[in-house]
Amino acid sequence: MSITQFIREHDVQAIHNYLSSMSGYEIAVMCSQKNLEELKLIFICLSPKLAVDTFDYLPLRTQKNLLRMLPTVQVAAMLAEMPPDDRTQLLEELPKKVVDEYLNLLPQAERIVSEKLLKYPEDSLGRLMTTDYLTVRMNWTVAQALDHIRLYGHDSETIDVIYVVDDHNILLDDIPIKEFLFVPREFTVAQIADNKFIALSVDATAEQVINVFKEHNRVALPVINAAGELLGIVTIDDVFRLASERTTAKMQKVGGMEALDEPYMETPFFELMKKRARWLVLLFLGEMFTATAMGYFEVEISKAVVLALFLPLIISSGGNAGSQSSTLIIRAMALGEIKLRDWWRIMRREIPSGIFLGLVLGLVGLARVTIWSLFSNIYGDHWFMIALTIFTALIGVVLWGSLTGSMLPFILRRLGADPATSSAPLVATLVDVVGIVIYFTIALVILKGTLL
Amino acid sequence: MSITQFIREHDVQAIHNYLSSMSGYEIAVMCSQKNLEELKLIFICLSPKLAVDTFDYLPLRTQKNLLRMLPTVQVAAMLAEMPPDDRTQLLEELPKKVVDEYLNLLPQAERIVSEKLLKYPEDSLGRLMTTDYLTVRMNWTVAQALDHIRLYGHDSETIDVIYVVDDHNILLDDIPIKEFLFVPREFTVAQIADNKFIALSVDATAEQVINVFKEHNRVALPVINAAGELLGIVTIDDVFRLASERTTAKMQKVGGMEALDEPYMETPFFELMKKRARWLVLLFLGEMFTATAMGYFEVEISKAVVLALFLPLIISSGGNAGSQSSTLIIRAMALGEIKLRDWWRIMRREIPSGIFLGLVLGLVGLARVTIWSLFSNIYGDHWFMIALTIFTALIGVVLWGSLTGSMLPFILRRLGADPATSSAPLVATLVDVVGIVIYFTIALVILKGTLL
Repeated sequence: MSITQFIREHDVQAIHNYLSSMSGYEIAVMCSQKNLEELKLIFICLSPKLAVDTFDYLPLRTQKNLLRMLPTVQVAAMLAEMPPDDRTQLLEELPKKVVDEYLNLLPQAERIVSEKLLKYPEDSLGRLMTTDYLTVRMNWTVAQALDHIRLYGHDSETIDVIYVVDDHNILLDDIPIKEFLFVPREFTVAQIADNKFIALSVDATAEQVINVFKEHNRVALPVINAAGELLGIVTIDDVFRLASERTTAKMQKVGGMEALDEPYMETPFFELMKKRARWLVLLFLGEMFTATAMGYFEVEISKAVVLALFLPLIISSGGNAGSQSSTLIIRAMALGEIKLRDWWRIMRREIPSGIFLGLVLGLVGLARVTIWSLFSNIYGDHWFMIALTIFTALIGVVLWGSLTGSMLPFILRRLGADPATSSAPLVATLVDVVGIVIYFTIALVILKGTLL
Repeated sequence: MSITQFIREHDVQAIHNYLSSMSGYEIAVMCSQKNLEELKLIFICLSPKLAVDTFDYLPLRTQKNLLRMLPTVQVAAMLAEMPPDDRTQLLEELPKKVVDEYLNLLPQAERIVSEKLLKYPEDSLGRLMTTDYLTVRMNWTVAQALDHIRLYGHDSETIDVIYVVDDHNILLDDIPIKEFLFVPREFTVAQIADNKFIALSVDATAEQVINVFKEHNRVALPVINAAGELLGIVTIDDVFRLASERTTAKMQKVGGMEALDEPYMETPFFELMKKRARWLVLLFLGEMFTATAMGYFEVEISKAVVLALFLPLIISSGGNAGSQSSTLIIRAMALGEIKLRDWWRIMRREIPSGIFLGLVLGLVGLARVTIWSLFSNIYGDHWFMIALTIFTALIGVVLWGSLTGSMLPFILRRLGADPATSSAPLVATLVDVVGIVIYFTIALVILKGTLL
């Protein structure tokens, strides 16, 4: 008999038996092929623990829909079973009214925890915290500590590290569980404590948290407030997930659009269009200045149409150099390699870079026009002057691209904007518009008296 | 007395005492302000364990230089102290000859482990593995297992999970250390085993490994071969670091350059130039086709210079739409949301997307020309035909951009290339060159008999 048949027959007992030998992940994979009605039946048949395990692997949209369909008592049991950090992450996606309703379903202790965690600002470290960890005191013996771990460790998200606090809940140390196992049981906690610990400040930004976890090979880190009080712990799996979501969002922003909240195929068409169109229109409005800029050189273009032929080549080269520079700087900023005050060091590096790269492209451009002109008359008698114009314009435009691309992230950050979001479009527009002016101005100087 | 003074006086004992109360991270931070000679002195004064901890936080370039300067006996002690996975990651960065020399310095057991790990292909899971983990047998009692953990757990990278294997080293189960603490000590391992485990295949790609860790909240996962033999374990901190390095490399590639091996400021100037110039020249050669394409329309441009004014605006819009599409698809592919066989579903989504977005931009463009023409004579008598040309061209170019941006990653992946590396430049060139042809062809059709 297959599960499909049990579901068709609404055989609750058979479904329960069938599923209870599976892992949450396996059930979630199976769920991806079921409709909401079937999902509801499956969840009603699961134990709260297995239901929570399965739920964790479902896409957010399915989670929300499922919650709405399940009987209140089932939702209450599942929410109570969830670790506090997962619960926060689910609740913050729901409308305020629903959240209050769900909070009232929780046992008092769990409700207080969740209310406290939800009070932290969105996207703050508090929202990632769990309160399921173990604390011991300095004067306890290792035997007492182990008894405590045995009693209360079941709910703890990780027991790899045990935290030592004083009477005022001030964090004194973090001790790997190993240390407890490797010493005689009559030792006190103080004897195995090294009084050194790494803790996150509750005010730390997401980027700081990610970098601290990357630097220190820790599975979990404690979170403290300014007074040194232990507020909760953050585990590496949540930070890993956060980092991955941020990467996705950042890549989409660099790609010139607003970040999607959901996977590409699951984002509804018009939501996707809204997120794409907003940026495209903004970029389009910026790029309109290119038409204005070119308008100033209409006479020159009509005199020397050959100049127009090389325009896309020249401005795209400036854009490419700018995109390289801004990518390098934005990434280095995100990894904490570069601080705001380093702008001058970067500029001193990007000026020779821009000149060098412009020179390389300029020589290729010069060669192209020269070779073509040797075998045809396509660029007329003044081909060398045209080649020289292109050569010089490339140096100017590539230098301008490198400077804009590297300095804009600093300016944006200084102004409090996220460089990753706004740099790409601004660099593109600035490089294109100014690139046109640079190109035609150089052409005016070099070709005055011959073509122009 | 400050450490600077101790170093100046070469007071080995004082330096040792001063540093031994610090953590590896703190020493590494201090090291960043010292020169190589001073670093050498500092490392000679450190215990092997603290030296390894500190070494771990140094930039790769410093690590390499330092190794070359330290006395052989010190290098040997440090290498022997390193966990096998960190050792592999260091050795794989060094020249073959140096590696062999270092391997010979290791105690036999460590050498065998390192030789085995280095035999795995570069960038494979084997290179990330550590062999420092604990295995127990099904028929052991919990008391035996705990004794074993106490005896051998010191070297283990994580004791959060204990692995159960049979006589042939076939993995049977993974059991969280908690489970051992929460049951009577006379229980057997078999009684607490659930015979369910998640394991990585040694052939898994980096992306698969990252995604498995993201799906399952595990701190470490075992690695098995096709026969089910336990080969090693991979811990989440290494995977997290790997994911971050891959993100950096990918962002740099999408930004139009080869990935840097080192932080921006630490990459030597000419290495940086080589990595940037290579792509810029490649893109430049591709973009040269724009000059060729425009050459075909030289007559049309000279007849209607106004067409040239809108060229940058129109092709950049196609490029922006293409960059959005390729970013979305490449990211979804990396996260495993989209498979190769989904290309048709994506295409069916991108065609209406392209038309819709083109329509939006087309209307903005139409409005711009209309409004300008109401208040001036800048676009002449035929302004409405020009507006219509721009409107139609935008739909065509944006649709073409969306299609190219979304389909190229599939084609590249099908051909075995990395979409992240090659998509951006190819999309840019294809959209620009074809965009020019689309624009002028539409102009020819619409403006025939009036301007052209």
